[in-house]
Amino acid sequence: MEKSIAVVGGDLRIVKLVEMLVKDGYTVYTYGLEMSEDLLRLDKVEICPTVNEALKSSKVVVGPIPLSSDRRNLSMPFSNIKLNVEDFISCLSGKTLIAGNIVEDVRKKLEESKIPYIDLLKREEFTVLNTIATAEGTIQIAMEETQKTLHGSKVLVMGFGRIGKVLAKMLDGIGAKVYCEARKNEDIAWIKAYGYEPIHLNHLNEHLGEFDIIISTIPFQVLDKERLELVRKDVVIIDLASNPGGVDRKVAKEKDLKLIWALSLPGKVAPLTSAIYIKETLYHVLKELQ
Amino acid sequence: MEKSIAVVGGDLRIVKLVEMLVKDGYTVYTYGLEMSEDLLRLDKVEICPTVNEALKSSKVVVGPIPLSSDRRNLSMPFSNIKLNVEDFISCLSGKTLIAGNIVEDVRKKLEESKIPYIDLLKREEFTVLNTIATAEGTIQIAMEETQKTLHGSKVLVMGFGRIGKVLAKMLDGIGAKVYCEARKNEDIAWIKAYGYEPIHLNHLNEHLGEFDIIISTIPFQVLDKERLELVRKDVVIIDLASNPGGVDRKVAKEKDLKLIWALSLPGKVAPLTSAIYIKETLYHVLKELQ
Amino acid sequence: MEKSIAVVGGDLRIVKLVEMLVKDGYTVYTYGLEMSEDLLRLDKVEICPTVNEALKSSKVVVGPIPLSSDRRNLSMPFSNIKLNVEDFISCLSGKTLIAGNIVEDVRKKLEESKIPYIDLLKREEFTVLNTIATAEGTIQIAMEETQKTLHGSKVLVMGFGRIGKVLAKMLDGIGAKVYCEARKNEDIAWIKAYGYEPIHLNHLNEHLGEFDIIISTIPFQVLDKERLELVRKDVVIIDLASNPGGVDRKVAKEKDLKLIWALSLPGKVAPLTSAIYIKETLYHVLKELQ
Amino acid sequence: MEKSIAVVGGDLRIVKLVEMLVKDGYTVYTYGLEMSEDLLRLDKVEICPTVNEALKSSKVVVGPIPLSSDRRNLSMPFSNIKLNVEDFISCLSGKTLIAGNIVEDVRKKLEESKIPYIDLLKREEFTVLNTIATAEGTIQIAMEETQKTLHGSKVLVMGFGRIGKVLAKMLDGIGAKVYCEARKNEDIAWIKAYGYEPIHLNHLNEHLGEFDIIISTIPFQVLDKERLELVRKDVVIIDLASNPGGVDRKVAKEKDLKLIWALSLPGKVAPLTSAIYIKETLYHVLKELQ
Repeated sequence: MEKSIAVVGGDLRIVKLVEMLVKDGYTVYTYGLEMSEDLLRLDKVEICPTVNEALKSSKVVVGPIPLSSDRRNLSMPFSNIKLNVEDFISCLSGKTLIAGNIVEDVRKKLEESKIPYIDLLKREEFTVLNTIATAEGTIQIAMEETQKTLHGSKVLVMGFGRIGKVLAKMLDGIGAKVYCEARKNEDIAWIKAYGYEPIHLNHLNEHLGEFDIIISTIPFQVLDKERLELVRKDVVIIDLASNPGGVDRKVAKEKDLKLIWALSLPGKVAPLTSAIYIKETLYHVLKELQ
Repeated sequence: MEKSIAVVGGDLRIVKLVEMLVKDGYTVYTYGLEMSEDLLRLDKVEICPTVNEALKSSKVVVGPIPLSSDRRNLSMPFSNIKLNVEDFISCLSGKTLIAGNIVEDVRKKLEESKIPYIDLLKREEFTVLNTIATAEGTIQIAMEETQKTLHGSKVLVMGFGRIGKVLAKMLDGIGAKVYCEARKNEDIAWIKAYGYEPIHLNHLNEHLGEFDIIISTIPFQVLDKERLELVRKDVVIIDLASNPGGVDRKVAKEKDLKLIWALSLPGKVAPLTSAIYIKETLYHVLKELQ
Repeated sequence: MEKSIAVVGGDLRIVKLVEMLVKDGYTVYTYGLEMSEDLLRLDKVEICPTVNEALKSSKVVVGPIPLSSDRRNLSMPFSNIKLNVEDFISCLSGKTLIAGNIVEDVRKKLEESKIPYIDLLKREEFTVLNTIATAEGTIQIAMEETQKTLHGSKVLVMGFGRIGKVLAKMLDGIGAKVYCEARKNEDIAWIKAYGYEPIHLNHLNEHLGEFDIIISTIPFQVLDKERLELVRKDVVIIDLASNPGGVDRKVAKEKDLKLIWALSLPGKVAPLTSAIYIKETLYHVLKELQ
Repeated sequence: MEKSIAVVGGDLRIVKLVEMLVKDGYTVYTYGLEMSEDLLRLDKVEICPTVNEALKSSKVVVGPIPLSSDRRNLSMPFSNIKLNVEDFISCLSGKTLIAGNIVEDVRKKLEESKIPYIDLLKREEFTVLNTIATAEGTIQIAMEETQKTLHGSKVLVMGFGRIGKVLAKMLDGIGAKVYCEARKNEDIAWIKAYGYEPIHLNHLNEHLGEFDIIISTIPFQVLDKERLELVRKDVVIIDLASNPGGVDRKVAKEKDLKLIWALSLPGKVAPLTSAIYIKETLYHVLKELQ
């Protein structure tokens, strides 16, 4: 039985994904990836002249992650063509769309057109896997931005969610002295169980002056003006939370603190691993669609 | 301000708890602990002749964990007295009861009598902390029951919930080759993130013959007759799930497999640490009651 | 080409070794193991009536570890026969003896008789491997002898040689707070590199009162009367050093301290793993003899 | 009692060292560091106009690490002055020189002039501590040069000496699949004890095609033409050995392999931590000189 799939647009991770799909025996019909030289060399990759051509032979369509960067056109950095999101949707009748970060009004249109869709970024297993690359990218940044070794440094991880958990493990594994901040007693118990030093939010201020590095994974502003008064002048702060982030940027700048706002790390520091995560999640989705 | 608290019944962990409460400045009024010699020596512990005497000076009453072992009388191994659960409840008017494993019909009676109660075993932070002692007790059993070192042994942990997570970490830390079984793709992703070998339930049977040790944390019978056919004859199986457990005991016996059913480990292997967990959780509760 | 080997005497580890040799294709000629039921069932194991019969078909002879326990007869717990060490040597002409703990005067006799010999306990790789089982056995003892979890306990490892290194790693892996004592600045640097808390011998006394567990790997009496005054009353001390050990036993007893003197752990806690180590080392030796 | 010390030349690590010495209460007399703005601001740092002025008040002189980069003048990147090594030596009468990498003919001259000297790079504790920064710098390079996460990557560490040991531990801690190559059975045993996958040099060739990353710590050419034929095309090779290194550079280039030759990492990636190591070792030396 022949396996085929359509891929429209996407960044380096999607290019790597196509390569792996071919390796696994798929014929891949692509549109919006024509400038990737790596794909040109592959036998079982079709570079289609129109999006309809690409969609013809497959019931499942893989789109970009995120679907669109400007809320208008598909995200297609490996193409000279522009493809409007609405035009794209109008071609999808009878197909299932698999893409990333599909925003509210696009979702609405898909639902109106009765086009089933799956947002990879909402798949828990993909989010967990991405956490690995985010944590490792954070460690790379911490290494690059400090004049000390992480080994022996005192590092505070704020928030003990997915990223906090994996990041703390890696930091500990490399020899840092790891402190984790949390609000809930339950999380404090987990922090103890994993062997890091727990700091309850209520006691955070007493300790803020001790750290070489502070990494925030919390999506609201915990490091406000008052708390930024308490950190060391030579601290390195890394903020992993999306807009508006967890740090008062204005105050940090006024105080001349070293603050790095690090977003979308997986695609930047480890596009290949990221592509593997996409592939694994895609295969789970394909299996569920059968 | 003087701090006082009432403690009625309980095992060695409660005795240790009383010692720590005294150390922290409490006067403790006890009933049903009169045979503990350790407590007799302490200044600020009152051994009260009646339960009412013990309850007089405190609004909060700490009871046994579990509250009752026979569903009739309070669990009081350090006493020669018998105290009926209903009689106990009838003394609690105006008090708050803190105990462990308060069963359905006792809960009902407490509610009818409008007596507020807190079940420590339902507190997430206590459950997480207990996981540490359970995991360590499991490792002790595994060491005692095998003729091999855990280091280098292939160990399967079935289920990646609270106990699975902590147990896998410790086994890995001691040098075992750790495999974790799970059903959900999300858990498989976590197992990868933590660096253990993931085995999806769908593929479990292909691997069952590889393990030196199998530890089940799943509360339903995953190791059934069919699967027990697949394990090694010299495997050691440890079942951590409460009744009916995760292993077909009858088949295991017929096949002469080494199966250890290990329950209530924290109190057995580490009563002192367990008492510390109780104290920490008790303090959280007291703070919330203020 | 047929492979055969002679095995004379030895304990459970040697019995397990014989089983593994058979599995690897050897025919094994044994003497002094006739009471092991496990061996009787094996096809390719010959139970020889005389030691000469056993030695006939092999140029290499595996003897007990230790060769003798009473300095007179071979160590043969799986036999009703007594075999004098000198009588044994007189049969070895033209053979190579591989055994453990061959003492000075036996070595002399072997040399006089021009019989080549290899003491497994002097093989560095065997000693290192044995360290794994010793460390794990120590952890088992520590778990059994304390009422606390190792996780979260403060543990002092005295001496950072082979055993200290492996033990510290395992203790850390299980979640203990690990402190390592050493005399040399170089060892202190290693302790830091591995991420444990270093304590220089010069500063030991200031810290001795902090530990839940103290494990000594040092072959001379560091925990003398003066230092035993400084430890906690509820400390558990484990002494891994052979006679006279690293702890003043008399003082420890007077002060009613909990002291466990743990020797020869590998054979006791993990005879099977120990047998694997013997096998691996034996194979290295056989290869070198070719 | 006042403490004073002379410091002549050196790089950023020496600047940081001076800052820490001042913090610890020393008055520091410097020469050849006049362009460091950080030092100008410090009260207890004297910027001396001549080397003799700097040496006047101290019996111990700290020189650059390495003493000279061009075998002619002192290594003084924070100075506009040139100071010839021989001229420097002629000022040292009655002093003790502490510096790094003092080469053969300089050593001879110092001995002829009866000037005691200590080479920090020959101090075992300093070498071990430096290993931490080297290992961490290597991990930073590996992260920067690959499109994959280290987590989950197969990494080969060649050589199990000081750097190999610390590097393997950190790689394992971050979640890489760590393989260690060694020649000696003893090292293979250590690799097992620490829980990495051992590969004996005799079996290296069979495995070379499996690795995402290969890190060589061996000071002779193990990755020769023949072996470079066996590695993957997309492998990243990091060579930590000083000239001539452990990899056939010419062949690596011909085959278009990604090869990074990484030297003197501690000073580059973690000058501050490096300065702390220098300080700790210096204090040991000062104590021994008393």
